Amino acid sequence: MEFDGIHGLTEVINGSLREFFDEESQYLREIGSELDPVADALGHFLLDSGKRLRPLFATIGFLGAGGDLSPAIIRATASLELIHVCALIHDDVMDASDTRRGAPAIHKQFQSLHQAQALHGNGEQFGAAAAILLGDLALIWAAKALHESGAPTQSILRSLPVYDEMRVELMAGQYLDIYEQALASESVERSLKVARFKSGKYSIERPLHFGASLAANLSPTLIESYSNYGLPLGEAFQLRDDVIGVFGDPEKTGKPAGDDLREGKRTVLVATTLSRANVTQRTEFLNLFGRKDLNLNEIESLRALIVETGSLAELESIIQEMTFKAHKALTTGGITPQAVALLAEMAVAATQRTA
Amino acid sequence: MEFDGIHGLTEVINGSLREFFDEESQYLREIGSELDPVADALGHFLLDSGKRLRPLFATIGFLGAGGDLSPAIIRATASLELIHVCALIHDDVMDASDTRRGAPAIHKQFQSLHQAQALHGNGEQFGAAAAILLGDLALIWAAKALHESGAPTQSILRSLPVYDEMRVELMAGQYLDIYEQALASESVERSLKVARFKSGKYSIERPLHFGASLAANLSPTLIESYSNYGLPLGEAFQLRDDVIGVFGDPEKTGKPAGDDLREGKRTVLVATTLSRANVTQRTEFLNLFGRKDLNLNEIESLRALIVETGSLAELESIIQEMTFKAHKALTTGGITPQAVALLAEMAVAATQRTA
Repeated sequence: MEFDGIHGLTEVINGSLREFFDEESQYLREIGSELDPVADALGHFLLDSGKRLRPLFATIGFLGAGGDLSPAIIRATASLELIHVCALIHDDVMDASDTRRGAPAIHKQFQSLHQAQALHGNGEQFGAAAAILLGDLALIWAAKALHESGAPTQSILRSLPVYDEMRVELMAGQYLDIYEQALASESVERSLKVARFKSGKYSIERPLHFGASLAANLSPTLIESYSNYGLPLGEAFQLRDDVIGVFGDPEKTGKPAGDDLREGKRTVLVATTLSRANVTQRTEFLNLFGRKDLNLNEIESLRALIVETGSLAELESIIQEMTFKAHKALTTGGITPQAVALLAEMAVAATQRTA
Repeated sequence: MEFDGIHGLTEVINGSLREFFDEESQYLREIGSELDPVADALGHFLLDSGKRLRPLFATIGFLGAGGDLSPAIIRATASLELIHVCALIHDDVMDASDTRRGAPAIHKQFQSLHQAQALHGNGEQFGAAAAILLGDLALIWAAKALHESGAPTQSILRSLPVYDEMRVELMAGQYLDIYEQALASESVERSLKVARFKSGKYSIERPLHFGASLAANLSPTLIESYSNYGLPLGEAFQLRDDVIGVFGDPEKTGKPAGDDLREGKRTVLVATTLSRANVTQRTEFLNLFGRKDLNLNEIESLRALIVETGSLAELESIIQEMTFKAHKALTTGGITPQAVALLAEMAVAATQRTA
């Protein structure tokens, strides 16, 4: 199977997701037209945007283990995007976030449907309920896409333990995250632990292992190479997320400017800022941080504090160091040359992105 | 593998669930002690009560297809209970129900944890977020229990399409239900459609098919026999639920008296009452129905209206008719005699229960 670099691979993954969605949404619509909004909302969420990071890592993980790519394998790796859709939809309900990828969050969309159709009961509750179910459905669709991918049964059977472990780790990481937020922890170490768990494992390391398991029995060397690449890169990826959540351009992120500051999100960037701030800076920061009604000037003040304390520079330096570590892991062998090249490209994409 | 009737089988299923939970919760706790409350809450929810209806039907479905029972198969069928745990936990968040099985609902438990630990942010939101994640985790554990059951790989591979279809139908049925509630529909026909989809398929028919698929390739005769038994019995089961939701004894149900009436739940029983009520009865009913602050006298008035309009009698008669249909389907052959006897016992248990 031929493809043209990361961009070409992304297109192939998108095509597979579209095909899967068309079949599954057809099935939903046949149950009853009441389910049309469910199918529509999931379709837009899944297909209108998304970087396909996890499917890409899984596919490259497969190639790196010497696998011979096929549409069936692409379907199996693309399935990870549907897990991510579940995580994002549920995340937005949990955080009560109103926007995602430049559009209203799913729970907001169904709250609007409730209003438009003048339905009974509480619209906010209806929106949240629908979003919980759509997330559940995405998680189930993900498994269905893998199970019915047409990949060799031995591939599927080998991949299931990795697949399950990845999903358990994701949910455990999500809980650690909400608990950490509720603790309003200022510990850099603790926020790094959450970042490592949530993104290090779930976004990069496990997708690589999952992809490799579709190709062959996991060799200890390959597992280790992928971990040595995936864990630091995942950390760098999460720290880049922290930076984008504060300094990102709304046009690119699809979220309001300084969204994480309004939300009061306890990230590594925030913990670093608090650990580096003097008393005046600390008071000024905590006085504004987490206020829902922050205006652009106030957001600028918070950003200035993050820069003045040297915290942005510190994060950029960790990102650089972690990315360097990831690149270095690629030279330790066990990964096919084609995959090494693609992983090098992905390391740049994951850490130098703006959205 | 020997067991003593439905009761004995339930014990075997409980043992398998306990063993699975012990392993998985151990893993969670090792990630970090922050996850202890997650493990504890899921453990109590899973193990303290539950009729194991779906695992029982799946196990009997397996026996009825001529399968030879083993601990591995029990683990695979027991996994359905974890899907149900997900459905119940998420259901309680969606309905904002405060109690389940005589204990605070999961979201309430984590709201209390938020308060007890004096955590930051909104406690209600934290409780809902935790419950969403615990439900997700239960759904993932369910799949893990099946995948790692130790059942022959051919059994697992045969069962996955049925498993996935059942889960998609469950979530589709749940959405139909919340939408129907929001429509405040008075149509008996529509509420029956939801009941058929939600309980008919998910609670009985699909577990039987799933169990059968673990034993052998599904034969069209057996599929049909199980559907002819499962669909009417599932409907009767759901109607019994409607009756218990209004007339149930709190000591047995673990929910407050007349809970469905306070919640304003649009069930077949309510639709039947509204369709049979005269103008005075209708006004009286709608005047009270769905009020959160109903006292016991008012609940008694609503119950009286349901009885006076003949709606309770009508439901009991449908339950009887559907149960009769289910019993009759058992005589059409294709099911092993042992399973026929167990299914006859289950038909009674599912429709003559008080909780």
